[in-house]
Amino acid sequence: MQIVRSVAAMQRLGQGWQRAGARVGLVPTMGCLHAGHLSLVERARRMVGPRGKVVVSIYVNPTQFGPAEDFSRYPRDLARDARLCRAEGVDVVFAPGDKQMYARGDGAGFTTYVAEECLARVMEGVSRPTHFRGVTTVVTKLFHIVQPGVAVFGAKDYQQAAIVKRMVRDLNFPVKIVVAPVQREADGLAMSSRNRYLVGDLRGQAVVLWLALQRVRVAVRRAGRPMSAARLKAALRRFIEQTPTARLDYVEFFEPETLAPVSKVTRGVHMALAVFVGKTRLIDNTRL
Amino acid sequence: MQIVRSVAAMQRLGQGWQRAGARVGLVPTMGCLHAGHLSLVERARRMVGPRGKVVVSIYVNPTQFGPAEDFSRYPRDLARDARLCRAEGVDVVFAPGDKQMYARGDGAGFTTYVAEECLARVMEGVSRPTHFRGVTTVVTKLFHIVQPGVAVFGAKDYQQAAIVKRMVRDLNFPVKIVVAPVQREADGLAMSSRNRYLVGDLRGQAVVLWLALQRVRVAVRRAGRPMSAARLKAALRRFIEQTPTARLDYVEFFEPETLAPVSKVTRGVHMALAVFVGKTRLIDNTRL
Repeated sequence: MQIVRSVAAMQRLGQGWQRAGARVGLVPTMGCLHAGHLSLVERARRMVGPRGKVVVSIYVNPTQFGPAEDFSRYPRDLARDARLCRAEGVDVVFAPGDKQMYARGDGAGFTTYVAEECLARVMEGVSRPTHFRGVTTVVTKLFHIVQPGVAVFGAKDYQQAAIVKRMVRDLNFPVKIVVAPVQREADGLAMSSRNRYLVGDLRGQAVVLWLALQRVRVAVRRAGRPMSAARLKAALRRFIEQTPTARLDYVEFFEPETLAPVSKVTRGVHMALAVFVGKTRLIDNTRL
Repeated sequence: MQIVRSVAAMQRLGQGWQRAGARVGLVPTMGCLHAGHLSLVERARRMVGPRGKVVVSIYVNPTQFGPAEDFSRYPRDLARDARLCRAEGVDVVFAPGDKQMYARGDGAGFTTYVAEECLARVMEGVSRPTHFRGVTTVVTKLFHIVQPGVAVFGAKDYQQAAIVKRMVRDLNFPVKIVVAPVQREADGLAMSSRNRYLVGDLRGQAVVLWLALQRVRVAVRRAGRPMSAARLKAALRRFIEQTPTARLDYVEFFEPETLAPVSKVTRGVHMALAVFVGKTRLIDNTRL
């Protein structure tokens, strides 16, 4: 396995693979890998086959963090990540530095962004207004540098995956997007690098997101008729805030492809929520 | 020579060339080709060699026109354009329809844009606020569809070329951008598809842009010391508006790479201007 830190070297490698007709799968990550990421790597390997190339990018992308967010303290552990990738049969870990990705010797600065302007304006986009512009910009860069035929994203960041799919369709990227299912801890907590922030009691209380999803899933299946989204939201807020350290940021019910909110909740509708557990903001989602 | 009207077919062709290791040169145009465009085709051929592939895209891109601009009456003549391309040894004319490029059967609409946010805010960007966002978006789409190794743009649209170069650098497109010199009519008028709008007296009066550029070039070379940009601008406005049908939109003096305005004009500074001649808006530029 190779660790590549230079954008130019990674792009040369990607172009060489293109010319050689190799199938290339990319798993874009911010590192601090867990079993959720490794399931994406497995999926990429299945997509490109044993002779294909699997690239894991590890880059804590500054442009997707807001000014008051956790960019500087976001966990980083490249040595451990590289060991996990090697064990998983990854071909290349691409781990560029910020200067490689955004800073310029000529002082002219970085001034070009890719923005999805519809799906990115709801849910996470309300709480984190510049987040998705940062995501679509860095994913564009990674696609151009690595030139994969397939890229695998996790369903935990459901809205992100929907936006990346829309971007790929709108801008005609020659890349197939695969969305792999959420991986969960034994108690249902969705795997996330930010779970590291959950110390002491907080870890146990974080299961409230999963419990909320399950509650609604069961209620919708039992009801057998459409339920009011407004009433469900009010009930969920009460339920979640019974957990002492939990504060609901948002909960939404929406069409799975367009993310358009629905007022009547039935099976097949998608549900997503964001909850602060202590100071840690967690997200989760499911199809009901 | 092949005429391709489908995005999917063009993308398959491009990917086939990639795999075959062919060098591919793209000349993006809005059609209504003239000798300026053909000089770009020649340049693309020189870049990719006799065994490479030269693609001319012909697409009047709606997203780069403002609501009050000439999108609907912009001249279109695909049959003539195709003949010129065939005579010039072009391999593929890519002429997609608007539905191919922007409309979607699923009704979800087109919602992703690429925007350069610094160079795009001056000169043309002031007079045409959404123009360059349309350009960078469609150029991104064309690059993803055709997958060229090199793309050739004309220096007549100097700011556009600077913005495309910045976009390619910022977003790591694996494409080399070549900017080919302005082609001029015998009297100095820069070749442009919009010159077709200049009927009767207007054609002769349109030479005022070239005369203005020449005046300043001569003055700067004679002066031998920096000249005040503000004074030059005032003098140019008077000069241009002596032409009965001409109205100056802007004239600017700036650094060639960053487009940063300069207050002192010397050799090596770049000059650009936009002038309405009758109802037709013309642009031109030169290095002083």
